[in-house]
Amino acid sequence: MRSEPVTLLALDLTGTFAFGLNGALTAVRAARLDVVGVVVLGMITALGGGIIRDILIDALPPATLVDWRYYTLAAAGGLIAFALSKHLRRLEQTINVLDAVGLSTFAVIGSSKALSSGLGVAPSILLGVITAVGGGTIRDTLVRQIPSVLRSGLYAIPALVGAAVTVGTIEWGLYGLPAALGAASACFLIRMIGLHFDLNAPEPPETSEREPSSEDAT
Amino acid sequence: MRSEPVTLLALDLTGTFAFGLNGALTAVRAARLDVVGVVVLGMITALGGGIIRDILIDALPPATLVDWRYYTLAAAGGLIAFALSKHLRRLEQTINVLDAVGLSTFAVIGSSKALSSGLGVAPSILLGVITAVGGGTIRDTLVRQIPSVLRSGLYAIPALVGAAVTVGTIEWGLYGLPAALGAASACFLIRMIGLHFDLNAPEPPETSEREPSSEDAT
Amino acid sequence: MRSEPVTLLALDLTGTFAFGLNGALTAVRAARLDVVGVVVLGMITALGGGIIRDILIDALPPATLVDWRYYTLAAAGGLIAFALSKHLRRLEQTINVLDAVGLSTFAVIGSSKALSSGLGVAPSILLGVITAVGGGTIRDTLVRQIPSVLRSGLYAIPALVGAAVTVGTIEWGLYGLPAALGAASACFLIRMIGLHFDLNAPEPPETSEREPSSEDAT
Repeated sequence: MRSEPVTLLALDLTGTFAFGLNGALTAVRAARLDVVGVVVLGMITALGGGIIRDILIDALPPATLVDWRYYTLAAAGGLIAFALSKHLRRLEQTINVLDAVGLSTFAVIGSSKALSSGLGVAPSILLGVITAVGGGTIRDTLVRQIPSVLRSGLYAIPALVGAAVTVGTIEWGLYGLPAALGAASACFLIRMIGLHFDLNAPEPPETSEREPSSEDAT
Repeated sequence: MRSEPVTLLALDLTGTFAFGLNGALTAVRAARLDVVGVVVLGMITALGGGIIRDILIDALPPATLVDWRYYTLAAAGGLIAFALSKHLRRLEQTINVLDAVGLSTFAVIGSSKALSSGLGVAPSILLGVITAVGGGTIRDTLVRQIPSVLRSGLYAIPALVGAAVTVGTIEWGLYGLPAALGAASACFLIRMIGLHFDLNAPEPPETSEREPSSEDAT
Repeated sequence: MRSEPVTLLALDLTGTFAFGLNGALTAVRAARLDVVGVVVLGMITALGGGIIRDILIDALPPATLVDWRYYTLAAAGGLIAFALSKHLRRLEQTINVLDAVGLSTFAVIGSSKALSSGLGVAPSILLGVITAVGGGTIRDTLVRQIPSVLRSGLYAIPALVGAAVTVGTIEWGLYGLPAALGAASACFLIRMIGLHFDLNAPEPPETSEREPSSEDAT
């Protein structure tokens, strides 16, 4: 447990809870898992990004495993999502919004923690992106989907923008709650716009040799 | 290599060997891999949980990579399983029993190592569960199965019980070989009962929106 | 950033660039990803092995995230591969050669870094293999293929040879650029011969119980 501004902690816990709900709903939707599987996937999604971040910046044991607020919120998110899932008409949309909330907050927290751990500007931005997409990538891999970060051009990009704005405002001495919320909002908006208009980055010019991803031959 | 009671080391090595056999048999069954693939999957399954544990409690480099007994036993388990696989009539059942042995021993060792590294009660229990299910989760992911920890309600739960009993007896000063064996046995029995009666935790109340896990759309 | 011989750094950067190209071409071929997905998979493939290595030898934060040359080369490889992919007639073959280059250089660098971090002979060889196959294993898992290290007998074996020659020459005081290049060449040649003749290690003697890898039941 580190002494950090209460507002940043609130942002981090918000992302943890959102990813906990999101991972659990993904489990309900994608794989019809039972309550334990649902909560476990919620916890992995919520805690995964922060654990990867803390491993890479050598802040071990990870804050998300040591501080009870993180794992309790992650588990609570999973249980709530399990209980509510039958009342959700628009499961897909809820999943996407919660994922965007987690992505945005974790990009901000990940990059600011990396910078304050002594990393340089570019590595801190990179680490913000890894924190933001890490939990969701593990989530998708475990339920056997190609991860969002690979499938959707506007998944890594908004995280990159959020992390870059965070690192930029810290470097220029402008960081604080407004800057953090601004960076997170920028990431969130770009992600939601991309989802709404189904935007993607350019695809490869030609892929005549494309093979189904499920094939086994070398 | 740490100075630890011989009996706990024996428990840890038992789990390593069981997971080495288990991972190798899974490779034989699920994906018809050659001898190298079989041994590699055995070693990943046997060493994965302990490596994740040692990363998270900041005990690097991991004991399982530094102490020759671990990686040798893991590789031996893989080779033995490869050689014996054609003589095994009940491959499925053997795989399940070996997996339960690894799960039980690693829940006990993982939670006790976490506690002695200075983590609190709840994080130590969590880490016991992560140690227990970690190697098998990597194993299942690599051969493209939904991991047991998500599929089966009675996979994470017995690990949780084993880790909780371990941490409880340590906290109350009652820990020793009998307590460790009792915690591991409790985990093993719950897992085997769950497998025998095909028990699962409650499933989500309604999943009208269920989609096949192999689908790619966001 | 560590002070290391320029030649070894060159070998490491060569492998990083090769894996960046390789991962990106894999993304183009296997999953028809957009430019962001292609670059991200290139970077994960290029940086993954070194990150795992630095976590396991406790050299955190990882050199590949801190030193701009690594992540820049990895991203450049991804972009170049995206741009060139339509001009590549023999995508499969290019992917395989680049993978073998990355495998060879990372086996040498990984094992020598492990040894100089204080690990013993066998753990250093093991770590060389993990470094060499790590990035590609994450790559394959993310695009839902059974990893090469499990599928192909002559993938882990050449990495093992490269790492063993590296560690052997260091232990005997014969290490230097020639030895490093010799170790990498040995690994590369064995891998290419295996690919050319489609060699594999012996398969399990009998697998009557074989089940499709995509099946879900425990």
